[in-house]
Amino acid sequence: MKNDVFLRACKREKVEYTPVWLMRQAGRYMSEYMEIRKNHSFLEMCKTPELATEVTLQPVNRVGVDAAILFADILLPLEGMGIDLEFAKGEGPVIHNPVRSEADVKKLRLIEPEQDVPYVLEAIKLVRKELDGRVPLIGFSGAPFTLASYMIEGGGSRNYLYCKQLMWQAPQLWHALMEKISKVIVSYLRAQAAAGAQALQVFDSWVGALSPADYAEYVLPHSKYVFEQLADLGVPVIHFANNASTLLELVREAGGDVIGVDWRIGLDEAWQRIGYDVAIQGNLDPVSLMAPPKVIEQKVKEILEQADNRPGHIFNLGHGINKETPVDNVIAMVEAVHKYSKRS
Amino acid sequence: MKNDVFLRACKREKVEYTPVWLMRQAGRYMSEYMEIRKNHSFLEMCKTPELATEVTLQPVNRVGVDAAILFADILLPLEGMGIDLEFAKGEGPVIHNPVRSEADVKKLRLIEPEQDVPYVLEAIKLVRKELDGRVPLIGFSGAPFTLASYMIEGGGSRNYLYCKQLMWQAPQLWHALMEKISKVIVSYLRAQAAAGAQALQVFDSWVGALSPADYAEYVLPHSKYVFEQLADLGVPVIHFANNASTLLELVREAGGDVIGVDWRIGLDEAWQRIGYDVAIQGNLDPVSLMAPPKVIEQKVKEILEQADNRPGHIFNLGHGINKETPVDNVIAMVEAVHKYSKRS
Repeated sequence: MKNDVFLRACKREKVEYTPVWLMRQAGRYMSEYMEIRKNHSFLEMCKTPELATEVTLQPVNRVGVDAAILFADILLPLEGMGIDLEFAKGEGPVIHNPVRSEADVKKLRLIEPEQDVPYVLEAIKLVRKELDGRVPLIGFSGAPFTLASYMIEGGGSRNYLYCKQLMWQAPQLWHALMEKISKVIVSYLRAQAAAGAQALQVFDSWVGALSPADYAEYVLPHSKYVFEQLADLGVPVIHFANNASTLLELVREAGGDVIGVDWRIGLDEAWQRIGYDVAIQGNLDPVSLMAPPKVIEQKVKEILEQADNRPGHIFNLGHGINKETPVDNVIAMVEAVHKYSKRS
Repeated sequence: MKNDVFLRACKREKVEYTPVWLMRQAGRYMSEYMEIRKNHSFLEMCKTPELATEVTLQPVNRVGVDAAILFADILLPLEGMGIDLEFAKGEGPVIHNPVRSEADVKKLRLIEPEQDVPYVLEAIKLVRKELDGRVPLIGFSGAPFTLASYMIEGGGSRNYLYCKQLMWQAPQLWHALMEKISKVIVSYLRAQAAAGAQALQVFDSWVGALSPADYAEYVLPHSKYVFEQLADLGVPVIHFANNASTLLELVREAGGDVIGVDWRIGLDEAWQRIGYDVAIQGNLDPVSLMAPPKVIEQKVKEILEQADNRPGHIFNLGHGINKETPVDNVIAMVEAVHKYSKRS
C-alpha cells in the first residue's frame, strides 16, 4: 500500500498528515462523472462494474483524496430483499412496494450478496486492481434506521410519518423489520470486505429525525448488532449519523472505530463527547466548498485546530458534496488539509 | 385575564398546571380551517383581519390550548421591504426578486408597520377583543437569519448555497442586510405588542443549517440586537431556534425569556444547558400526534418528567403540527398535559 495514511488514522496511529476524503466524492460535481452519466442511468452505472470502477477512481486521480469509496447507492441491497426500486428522474429513489404491514415484513428476504449484488462485489475487486495500492478502498452500507425509513416511506421523507407510526404503534413489527435489515447489512458489508474493501462506512443519513429516547429504544440495539457482527473482520468501520449531534454518545455506544460528525457541532466538542478512544471523521460544511479558496483554507485550518493534532482525525465534509461545487475548490481543500496538517 | 397560566409560566412563576400551545396550531389539520381555506388563498386569509381572527380562535375553541397565536406568515413584513412574495400552489413561498447584491440590499426599505402590515395589527386587536381575556395572544416574527435565508435563496432551501456564499464571501454586505432585517423585526414586533400581543415569539426556523462558529459570527449579534430592543416592552419573548441543539447556549446568549427546543434533545438536558434562569418551551415530536392517544400520553408524561415540575415550562411541539394530524389526538395531548402536570 503506497498511501495507508487513512487506514492508520482510522486506528488512531501516528500519521504524517491528516488524511482526507469526501462523502459522495464520486459524483455530479465532476465533469468526468457527468460525461459517463450522459450515456447511462444512475442504476446502470451502479450495476456495471467497469463504469462503477471508472467513476470510483475519478476523484482519486483528479482531486488527490487519501481514500477511494465505492460508487454505489445505499438502496441497492434492498432489491434482493424484494423491494421494487426505481430512481425516477429528478425525484430521487421511489419504492413501489413500501413496507408497512406484518405481511410486508414477512415477505422480505435476506440477501445472498454473491447472487443479489454481484456487481458491487465485482466492482470492488476491479477497483482494488486498478488502484493497485495507491489508496485504500472504502465499502459502505446504509444503517438499519435509514434503510428502514426508505422502505417504509417508499422514498425520501420530510417527517417520517409512516416510519415513526410503525415504530410507535407496532414496536414488535418494527423490531422484526430492523432485525431483517440488520442481517442484510451484515452480510452485505462482510461480502464487501471479503471482496476487498479495506474499510467500511455505515451511513445513518436520516436518524437525526429521532429523539434520543427513540434512538435508544428503537435503533441503538440494531445498529449495535451490525457493528458487533463486523468486529472480527479486522477492517476499520466508520459510523456516520447525519444531523445527530444530540445522539452522539448513543451513536458511539452503538459502535464504530471512527465516528463521523457533521458541521453543526464543533469537532473539538464532538470528540470530547464521544471520547478520545475512537477516531473521528469530519466535519466541513459542504457548502464551504462554494466559497473562494481563501475562505476554504481558513475553515480547514479551524477544523484542524479543533482536532489539535490528536491521532485519529480523518478530514471529511459533514455531509455529501453538492453537485454545484467547483472541482478546483475541492482540490484546494484537499491541498489545504495536507499542507496545514503536516506533522513536523 | 381568565387564564394567564401561559404568561406566568413564561415568567417562571408558580402555576397550577403546565400550559400548552402548539406551533402552527391554527392550520390545515383542522376541518374548520380547511372550510375557510377552501374559499380563500393563504395570503388572503393572512390579510383579512376577520378571517385571520376566526382562524386564530379555532384551536382555542376546539383544542383548549392555553394561548392563541396570531394566524400570519413570517414573510409578511418582507413585502413592505420591497420583496415580491408569492405563495405558489404546492410550492411554498417564492420570492421573485431575491436579494444577492449590494444594490439589492440598498434597495430594501425599512417598514412602517401601521402602513405596511396594517392587517396584522388590526387582526391582533380583533383577536384580543374576541378572546376577551380567555387566553393570552402571542404575536411573532421570523428571526434575522431565517428571514435573510428566504430573501437570499428566493424561497425555501435545502443547502442555503446562496445564503452561505453571501455570508462568507461578502460579510460586510451580509451584516448590512442582517441589520436592516433586524430593524424591521424590531419595529414589526413592537407594533404587534402595541396592538395587543401579550407575548412574542421569534422563529429561527432554518438556523440549524449553521455551524456554531458561523452562528456566533454571522447571526448572534443580530438576534441579540432584536431581543435587546424588545426588552423594555414588558411582554415575554420566546426564542425558538429549530434543529439547533448544538447552538443552544448561543441561542440563549442571543436572548429571550423562554427558549424553545425541538425533540432532538431531551428537555432535561436542554434546560440544564441553557440554565434554569430562563423558561423553556417544548418539545414533543409533532409526528407523535399521529400515534394513538395511549402513545401520546406516554410521550407527554416523559417530557413532563424531564421538566420535573420546575417553574417555567411551556409545553409545545418541537416543530409545527403536521397537516395530517387528527384533531382528536391533539385534544388528547392537551388534556394529558393538563392532567399529568396538575400541581397538588
